[in-house]
Amino acid sequence: MKAEIITIGDELLLGQVIDTNSSWLGQELNKLGIHVHYKSAISDKREAILDALSQASNRSSIVIITGGLGPTKDDITKFTMCEFFQTNLVLNQRVLDWVTEIFTKRNLPMIESNNQQAMLPANCELLWNRSGTAPGMWFYENDVAYVSMPGVPFEMKTIFEEEVIPMLKKTFSFPSIVHRTIQTCSIGESFLAKKIEDIENDLPPHIKLAYLPSVGSVRLRFSAYGENELELHDELNPIINKLYDRIGNYIYGEGNDSLQQVVGALLNSQSKTLATAESCTGGYIAHLITSVPGSSNYYLGSVIAYHNKIKMEQLNVPESLLIEHGAVSEACVIKMAEEVRLKTGADYAISSSGIAGPGGGSEAKPVGTVWIGFASESKSFGRIFNMGDNRERTILRTALMALDILRKELLED
Amino acid sequence: MKAEIITIGDELLLGQVIDTNSSWLGQELNKLGIHVHYKSAISDKREAILDALSQASNRSSIVIITGGLGPTKDDITKFTMCEFFQTNLVLNQRVLDWVTEIFTKRNLPMIESNNQQAMLPANCELLWNRSGTAPGMWFYENDVAYVSMPGVPFEMKTIFEEEVIPMLKKTFSFPSIVHRTIQTCSIGESFLAKKIEDIENDLPPHIKLAYLPSVGSVRLRFSAYGENELELHDELNPIINKLYDRIGNYIYGEGNDSLQQVVGALLNSQSKTLATAESCTGGYIAHLITSVPGSSNYYLGSVIAYHNKIKMEQLNVPESLLIEHGAVSEACVIKMAEEVRLKTGADYAISSSGIAGPGGGSEAKPVGTVWIGFASESKSFGRIFNMGDNRERTILRTALMALDILRKELLED
Repeated sequence: MKAEIITIGDELLLGQVIDTNSSWLGQELNKLGIHVHYKSAISDKREAILDALSQASNRSSIVIITGGLGPTKDDITKFTMCEFFQTNLVLNQRVLDWVTEIFTKRNLPMIESNNQQAMLPANCELLWNRSGTAPGMWFYENDVAYVSMPGVPFEMKTIFEEEVIPMLKKTFSFPSIVHRTIQTCSIGESFLAKKIEDIENDLPPHIKLAYLPSVGSVRLRFSAYGENELELHDELNPIINKLYDRIGNYIYGEGNDSLQQVVGALLNSQSKTLATAESCTGGYIAHLITSVPGSSNYYLGSVIAYHNKIKMEQLNVPESLLIEHGAVSEACVIKMAEEVRLKTGADYAISSSGIAGPGGGSEAKPVGTVWIGFASESKSFGRIFNMGDNRERTILRTALMALDILRKELLED
Repeated sequence: MKAEIITIGDELLLGQVIDTNSSWLGQELNKLGIHVHYKSAISDKREAILDALSQASNRSSIVIITGGLGPTKDDITKFTMCEFFQTNLVLNQRVLDWVTEIFTKRNLPMIESNNQQAMLPANCELLWNRSGTAPGMWFYENDVAYVSMPGVPFEMKTIFEEEVIPMLKKTFSFPSIVHRTIQTCSIGESFLAKKIEDIENDLPPHIKLAYLPSVGSVRLRFSAYGENELELHDELNPIINKLYDRIGNYIYGEGNDSLQQVVGALLNSQSKTLATAESCTGGYIAHLITSVPGSSNYYLGSVIAYHNKIKMEQLNVPESLLIEHGAVSEACVIKMAEEVRLKTGADYAISSSGIAGPGGGSEAKPVGTVWIGFASESKSFGRIFNMGDNRERTILRTALMALDILRKELLED
């Protein structure tokens, strides 16, 4: 089953936007057992779109198109799809009602370009866009499926997951594939690879292992291809068990679990509460925690003590401690965690203080030096790290590391 | 001058790597006035490469190829280039000396695959790779230039900047392009388009306008094409001025400015400080602010009062206020902003309280209802919004809206 991805938009060709859609789609299609053999990025011009569609129809069974939909004059995909399929636009009442509802809710007037969003090519099936006003479209002609979706990543992802995958499964038959994704953190890709080298080398040819690294974590995705799904599971289980024996300490979850979800579930199940006190992470730990729906059940709040004055006044860090040890110190993060725990009445607290850079480093404490603090009823401690010289990555890595330290403590308790 | 980019490698098609090379190249070529009209990502197989080269030779004057070079890729690109140009590999002594030197320095033995790196197609000009062992190659045939570079980003960038740009300038003559990017927020794409419809319609054919929306903001990119850069600037200036007259209130910056950078620069220039008190945004406002290097100059910190208990105990929100108005209310966000300002001694404070969802909504206060508060020495107020029913976007939009409210107040003061 050969698929190709066409992304439409001059902003991609001009390089003003980095295309994250097509790598996400590449992964999702791959999980279904669909092989992406070609990707193209084209201009939002009629001729370019027609040319790309015509070429794609000759070499692929599935053509995924993103972009070129939306209420402004840039919008051209819909018109060109009509031309390609020799059809015309017709009003879709369901979409019109939806768009009207959204605008009414937000107390905004409907203008002509919004009405235009409810006009769809007569030969397409609607792919419902729960996250926005530009609907997705499904076309099927001469054994080729064409999917057109807006380019806004979260809208595209919602449509793909909720609408496109079921349509693909209904239309085509795929071999059995079983994926198991193991989430690890607090260890780098090459060290991980070294630790499980023999497990990887012993994999049979129909089981593949992919390393999917991102800042602060590495996902290990096992994909087993075959005829019988149950047998594939039976083959994967002992391999995964071996992995847990070897690197269990670094594994925080499976599938799409995020570290903040895992930590939240642990807090929930133990009926415990959490507070944070952040300096160098500047609210990012709190943001990760509160990005999980329902986090208000266990998360009380935070003191972001970015300035030392706030550390002293709001977290009772003594000036003498700051003078003796500095704000980036074990003593400081322990005090921050202990104080925010007492102040809020939380069961657990984590804290951060470090030098995110680019300025502020010294020989003794170079940019990237970070202390993470922990406090519970029974103990408090600090741990030091060097997170490297990129501000954004230091913030991210520190937040994940703090959550992982909390996770391990929650598992022990 | 039409250019296209071909990236070679299965890791891109599988989505295991996000392609940042081609957006970087798109920007660099665009700056030179070279129009990238097509990008493709192909498999590292002989047939796919031959097919892509043959198509590219018919539609582009400049073909930039990255990837498929180096010992682990079996140097498939180099062999296939030879086949495409009907030539063969010959030893390049300069490259061999360089590769040998690198391996000697690192105390590593030269193996056969390393020697192989010094073999280049007989018809190419060497593009020196100061950052690695895989050389770049320049081909010129039938008025088309072909550039082949390794896919490792920093090697590719070095070769492009130091070797490719001079070769392009020597080989072709380029038109001028001038871009102006205007950053807007607090207004949706379709309303913006409606407001400046006549300005857009009046644009001469050689000036293009693109809408680049993301959650909470829309960038407007004007691109003027011509012979003389100064004249293009002169043509663009009155158009941009008209834009400022029409929608100046929504424009927060130009170029690559982020809202948090603009707000930070305003605070810096006025020597003022800021504190925040967040409920529904859960630290995301603080995160945006502290993502800017140097934000410790003006940002003091935050109280994240996720739980009502914290609102009462740390921000002195009276229980009676919470009972009478609820936490998602004008009275509450005003009190939060005023209190955090007093508590920290900041000049300005912003606050948030809302229902990010998916749970917690009611008929009176549906999911997406958000209050944003502001406090300064001279005034305090709250504003209400409906940010929609997606938790992630509500958090993002609320944070940007809060920063924009602060920006407008800073401009007034």
